[in-house]
Amino acid sequence: MFGYIMENVKIKTPLVHCISNYVTVNDCANIIMACGGAPIMADDQNEVEEISSICDALYINIGTLNERTIASMLKAGKKAAQLNHPVVLDPVGAGASSLRTTTTFNLLEQVDISVIRGNASEIKTLSSGIGTTKGVDADVSDSITEERLGDAIRLAQQLSRKNAAVIAITGAIDIVADSDKAYIIRNGHPLMSKITGTGCMLTAVIAAFCAANKEQLTEAAAAAVCVMGLCGELAHARVLKNDAGISSYSTYIIDEMSKMNGQTLQEGMKIEVK
Amino acid sequence: MFGYIMENVKIKTPLVHCISNYVTVNDCANIIMACGGAPIMADDQNEVEEISSICDALYINIGTLNERTIASMLKAGKKAAQLNHPVVLDPVGAGASSLRTTTTFNLLEQVDISVIRGNASEIKTLSSGIGTTKGVDADVSDSITEERLGDAIRLAQQLSRKNAAVIAITGAIDIVADSDKAYIIRNGHPLMSKITGTGCMLTAVIAAFCAANKEQLTEAAAAAVCVMGLCGELAHARVLKNDAGISSYSTYIIDEMSKMNGQTLQEGMKIEVK
Amino acid sequence: MFGYIMENVKIKTPLVHCISNYVTVNDCANIIMACGGAPIMADDQNEVEEISSICDALYINIGTLNERTIASMLKAGKKAAQLNHPVVLDPVGAGASSLRTTTTFNLLEQVDISVIRGNASEIKTLSSGIGTTKGVDADVSDSITEERLGDAIRLAQQLSRKNAAVIAITGAIDIVADSDKAYIIRNGHPLMSKITGTGCMLTAVIAAFCAANKEQLTEAAAAAVCVMGLCGELAHARVLKNDAGISSYSTYIIDEMSKMNGQTLQEGMKIEVK
Repeated sequence: MFGYIMENVKIKTPLVHCISNYVTVNDCANIIMACGGAPIMADDQNEVEEISSICDALYINIGTLNERTIASMLKAGKKAAQLNHPVVLDPVGAGASSLRTTTTFNLLEQVDISVIRGNASEIKTLSSGIGTTKGVDADVSDSITEERLGDAIRLAQQLSRKNAAVIAITGAIDIVADSDKAYIIRNGHPLMSKITGTGCMLTAVIAAFCAANKEQLTEAAAAAVCVMGLCGELAHARVLKNDAGISSYSTYIIDEMSKMNGQTLQEGMKIEVK
Repeated sequence: MFGYIMENVKIKTPLVHCISNYVTVNDCANIIMACGGAPIMADDQNEVEEISSICDALYINIGTLNERTIASMLKAGKKAAQLNHPVVLDPVGAGASSLRTTTTFNLLEQVDISVIRGNASEIKTLSSGIGTTKGVDADVSDSITEERLGDAIRLAQQLSRKNAAVIAITGAIDIVADSDKAYIIRNGHPLMSKITGTGCMLTAVIAAFCAANKEQLTEAAAAAVCVMGLCGELAHARVLKNDAGISSYSTYIIDEMSKMNGQTLQEGMKIEVK
Repeated sequence: MFGYIMENVKIKTPLVHCISNYVTVNDCANIIMACGGAPIMADDQNEVEEISSICDALYINIGTLNERTIASMLKAGKKAAQLNHPVVLDPVGAGASSLRTTTTFNLLEQVDISVIRGNASEIKTLSSGIGTTKGVDADVSDSITEERLGDAIRLAQQLSRKNAAVIAITGAIDIVADSDKAYIIRNGHPLMSKITGTGCMLTAVIAAFCAANKEQLTEAAAAAVCVMGLCGELAHARVLKNDAGISSYSTYIIDEMSKMNGQTLQEGMKIEVK
């Protein structure tokens, strides 16, 4: 169903402008390349508009935001949106500090964001304005279970309408929703929450997928969530085989992305639409 | 002897606020998760106090300090100490530049630091005020040998008294001392000095261990030094087995940390107390 | 032929001051250690001169330049050149933004640069002042083929004369030229262009090789290009063997560097001089 979405990335090699955090930036660059895109990291105010102009999408991640880069995010975001590039936001830790929450709201207000991906606590913060995020991880009380799935979908769709953006909430179960429909995705592995960067990497992959599939952002985001989860599953099998641990797991996830193609994605994706 | 200290980390999942360098930050985040903690990196002045408030410990690493982050270190440090959180300092390259030396002394003067971990040259700089650090590595003339062990212990204990902090000097032989006692640890492998980040990662693990064992910081720091050395030993065996090199070694060390538990630590630790 | 150049690095353990980007900085630090050098990353204006003074070479990489670090690059560059240290420049993305192009020209004007390494598009930008860089990768129309080899050598030598610097253009075929001679190198593997950081790592290795072989910078740079390509070949064999992907490839390249010695280099290098 979504195989061609991944193939589009490989065919078009979209250039993704990344203003990301310095913790997971290397993994984000490599996974963008692994899925078929090309990354460029640039965060100085004096070049972000120019860099965004030569790119196909903008990826903003507030994981290690600071005064200097916040200004760059806003500047790049406005430029990218003006050029009709998908702008994909990862509001890392929204709710954990007022700087993060305020910056996220400022970005949503001033920039035409196309897709927002966060964990349940971050997305709840965007919806309610109040955060209960435990650092950069989702609070257990917020996590999406089968029982709370209906509520989570409603939340995602409300937020989608309010911001005219695709909303992806990821965790044990993932939701990708726009105002009309919601995809529920059950790929992935619990070990993905035991390494740093899976969320950041996923959002980077969403940016690459959206850049190469501008006419169907919801499906592009959903395909990216499936493919990332599938890589998590395949990488986990390799961890078991090699008696490895979490740092190898991180390496293997990117490895699997570089070996992935549309057909493997098609066969392995666990998705339903509501 | 120290198995329960590691188990406490796994049970409590302490949140560690990290103001670290951008070279080894990904490894620090992953090893904190691997040992059972949760990291959050935040270095902007406008959020560090708030972030530290929701955390259980603060990890300060001056490896790539700059004017902006130095201010954040001081601000976060004061807040964390005021909240009685362990503040763990890695004075990377103290002695290599006056900025690093001065910043370290400013931190010691203005912040109630709980644990300082450095190589022999860095710790000597803190003691004498004069540096002979060869970059970020210990000068050979400073390294701790069996002959110089007694002197090194005395140095550590003097510094501990002066700063009311636990002092960890790491190298071929490791010392963890407070004003009353000193642990001598002989875990580890020489290959650990051939990769970037083992020192930074160790200090990050110390922060997680102290966060979950606030009543016995010296033992928490000593246990962290043991466990890191043990991971270095186990990872080295895997390097030999796979005919690998130093980058795999770095991955394997974090892998071993994620597979470690209190019992393996108990069985593998090589420690004596003086 | 160049085996002793690598052995010199291992014997002298040169200290390399790096002002690098935050994307590939960990890989750069590890590969400098892997080839026999020692890295120190420092980018604050208040310490770069002091840090450069205790080092043997300076590595400048503009991959994530910003106003703060540009000032540090200029300051460190002037100090290092004054002390007769090799200054090695990686003009990442020159041509992609005017900030990058201008900064590169400012560095060339104000600092006595010893070696410049870039892809074909970056080097063309330095030569013509006009960029067609596709982000941080070479534009296909610029890449060096057997047909365009003669032109590329002429370009490199002109630029070498103009800037009194060794010029390395890397891609499918690599050129290392000074005003008198040009080395053509055919080591390497196409997969090297599918991961982030191979260019940055190579430039870091050039800096370490030049630091330990100050009397023959052209040969030092050529040897570094050979050894990096050879590591890329050996690492690729390991990727095939382990059915791995691009993130493992990155790890294996650094692994192979740490296992490399002068003799393996000598036997594996594919070089001719013109």
